[in-house]
Amino acid sequence: MTRITVAKGDGIGPEIMNATLAILQAAGAQLEVDEIQVGEQVYLAGNMSGISSESWDIIRRNKVFLKAPITTPQGGGYKSLNVTIRKMLGLYANIRPCMSLHPFVKTKHPGMDLVIVRENEEDLYAGIEHQQTDEVMQCLKLISRPGCEKIVHYAFAYARQYKRQKITCFTKDNIMKQTDGLFHRVFDEIAPAYPDLQNEHWIVDIGAAKLADTPEAFDVIVMPNLYGDILSDVAAQIAGSVGLAGSANIGEECAMFEAIHGSAPRRAGQNLANPSGLLQGAIMMLNHLGQTEVAQRVQNAWLKTIEDGVHTYDIYKEGISQQKVGTSEFAQAVIARL
Amino acid sequence: MTRITVAKGDGIGPEIMNATLAILQAAGAQLEVDEIQVGEQVYLAGNMSGISSESWDIIRRNKVFLKAPITTPQGGGYKSLNVTIRKMLGLYANIRPCMSLHPFVKTKHPGMDLVIVRENEEDLYAGIEHQQTDEVMQCLKLISRPGCEKIVHYAFAYARQYKRQKITCFTKDNIMKQTDGLFHRVFDEIAPAYPDLQNEHWIVDIGAAKLADTPEAFDVIVMPNLYGDILSDVAAQIAGSVGLAGSANIGEECAMFEAIHGSAPRRAGQNLANPSGLLQGAIMMLNHLGQTEVAQRVQNAWLKTIEDGVHTYDIYKEGISQQKVGTSEFAQAVIARL
Ligand SMILES: CC(C)[C@H](C(=O)O)[C@@H](O)C(=O)O
Ligand SMILES: CC(C)[C@H](C(=O)O)[C@@H](O)C(=O)O
Repeated sequence: MTRITVAKGDGIGPEIMNATLAILQAAGAQLEVDEIQVGEQVYLAGNMSGISSESWDIIRRNKVFLKAPITTPQGGGYKSLNVTIRKMLGLYANIRPCMSLHPFVKTKHPGMDLVIVRENEEDLYAGIEHQQTDEVMQCLKLISRPGCEKIVHYAFAYARQYKRQKITCFTKDNIMKQTDGLFHRVFDEIAPAYPDLQNEHWIVDIGAAKLADTPEAFDVIVMPNLYGDILSDVAAQIAGSVGLAGSANIGEECAMFEAIHGSAPRRAGQNLANPSGLLQGAIMMLNHLGQTEVAQRVQNAWLKTIEDGVHTYDIYKEGISQQKVGTSEFAQAVIARL
Repeated sequence: MTRITVAKGDGIGPEIMNATLAILQAAGAQLEVDEIQVGEQVYLAGNMSGISSESWDIIRRNKVFLKAPITTPQGGGYKSLNVTIRKMLGLYANIRPCMSLHPFVKTKHPGMDLVIVRENEEDLYAGIEHQQTDEVMQCLKLISRPGCEKIVHYAFAYARQYKRQKITCFTKDNIMKQTDGLFHRVFDEIAPAYPDLQNEHWIVDIGAAKLADTPEAFDVIVMPNLYGDILSDVAAQIAGSVGLAGSANIGEECAMFEAIHGSAPRRAGQNLANPSGLLQGAIMMLNHLGQTEVAQRVQNAWLKTIEDGVHTYDIYKEGISQQKVGTSEFAQAVIARL
C-alpha cells in the first residue's frame, strides 16, 4: 500500500476525481488516500495561496499527490495554486504525452504520438513581476544552468526509458541569446551523452508551426516553461482534445499528477465531465509508483472504452461514437473492461 | 510616383525580390526604387547591426521599405536586423493575414481566413537581457500602457477598415497579472469604443490550441509580441505554408513590408524559391500607399496563378497542382494574368 495525497478541487474536480478513484480501486491499485482541501474554498477563507500549511505537511509526507483542477477566484492578489505547488515542491519537469486515438476520437493528425517535456519552475513563471512606473510593467524571464541541465537530462532519460527515438529542443535563441541561448547550449552539451537518441533543435516559431501542421514529425520535445504551456495545449488539442491529456509534475522528492485542463465551473455538478485527463494523470502516477501492471490494466481498459465508442459529451461525435455517457457511467464502462 | 526603399537581402532574397519587383512594375505600380544593402555582407564587413547609417537615412526619407529576408551570421554579438529596424523606426504593429487557398493549396483548414495583429516593439523583444551570475540569465519582458493602447487601437481600426467582425485578444494574464494583465485591461477599455465589432479574450494556451484546431473560429487576433511571433507562424503554416504569408510592420512615420519566412540559404541561387510571401508583403505596401487598384490587380493575378495550379516546389502537390515552376516562371505566370 502506498499512501498518496488527493485533492478533489473545484468545478468538475470532485466528479472526475471520484470517477478516477473508483477506476483505480477496481483495478487493484495499492493506494491509501489522504484527502486535502485546496482551491476556491481555501482562497475565499482568506488564504491567498489556496492551500493550508497542514495540507503542505501531508503532501510532503506522502510525496505523491493526485490533484483535480481548481478554480482561482477572480480579482488580484490570488496566486496560482498550480504554480505555487510546482515551485514549493521543486517539480521541475512537466510531462505531457499527446497521442491521437484515431479513428476512435476525431483528429486531423492520425499518426501523432509525442511527449512534451516542459521545464516547470523557471522562465516567466518565476513570478518576478512588478510595476516600474504608472505606465510600465515588467516581468523577469529567468533561466539557470542547473534548471536547464535537470530538465534536459530528464527529457533524454525519459526518452530512453520509454523507448522513444528522438528529442527535439525548442527555443527562441535567435532573439534571447542569453536565456534561451543557455537552454539550447545545455541541450547541445548533454545530447552526446545519449548517442542512442537522435536530437535536433528548432526555433520555437517555426517549430510550433511544424508541430501544428505535422505533429507526427516529433517524438519527445523539450522546451522552456512558457512555450511548453502553450504548445502542450496545442498538441493535446490537435491530437483529439485537451480533455484527454494528463500530466506528471516531477521533482527530486515529490511528484504531482493532474489533468491538463481546468475546472470548467459551468459543467460542474451535472455528471457531464470527461474524467480521462485526470485518469491519464493517475496512470502516470501508477507508473511512477512502480505499479506498472495496474497502470497497464487501467490504460488498456480506458483505451477499450474509447475504442468501443463510449464517449462523454466533449468527445461524442455522430458516426464515430456509439454511446454518449456521463462521468460516472464512463467510469463504470472503464471498470467493466478492466 | 512614390519613392520606396528596397533591400534584396540574402539567400533567396534577391531572387524573390526581383520576381516581386517585376510583377509590381508590370502591374503599373507607381514606384521608384532606392536600393540599399542590408544583412550578411554588411554584418561581415564589421557592422554588428547589419545596416549602415546611410541606409538609415534613405529608409527614413522614403518612409516605405520593402525588405527581402536576410541572414544573420552565426555566433554571438550580431543583432537581429528585423528587430533593430522595428525598434528604430517605431514599427509598433505587425500585421499578418493568414488565409487558406483551398482547394488550390493543400490545407486541413479550408475555412480559415484570419489576421494576426502582433505588437511589435515590446515584450521580451525589448532586448534587455543579461547574465546575472555564472549560472543565471535574465531577460526582461516589458509591457507599457502606451504600447498596449497603440496596438489595440490599431487592431480595432484595422478590423473596421477591412470589414472584419470580431477581435480576439490573447494573453497569459492568469500568470503575468501585471504585464499581460495590462494588455488585457487596455483591450477591455478600448473595445467599447468599437461597438460595431465583437470582442473576446482567451488565455493564450487554450487560445493557441483552439487556433491550431479550429482556426475558422477567429477573425482578427491581437496579442503581445512573442505570442504573435509563434502563433503567426502556426496560423500561416496551417493555412497552407509560411511561404505564402506576407507581413506589414507599421509605425507612425514609416512602414516596412516583408515575407514572414527566412532567407533559406540552401535554396538560394537555384530559381526555386516561392516569391509569394514577399509579394503578399508588397501588396500590403501598395494598399498602404493608397495604390489600392494596383494592389487588387496584383492580388487577383496571384490568386489566379495559384488557382490555375502554377506552383513552386514548396506548394506543388501531385493531384492539386498543374505545373511546377521556378521563381522567375512563377513571376511570369502572375504577370501573364494581370
Ligand atoms: C493554470 C495555469 C497556471 C497552468 C499553467 O500556466 O501552467 C495551466 O495552464 C497548465 O498548463 O498547467
Ligand atoms: C527573424 C526573427 C527576428 C523574427 C522575429 O522573431 O520576430 C521572425 O521570426 C519574424 O517573425 O518576423
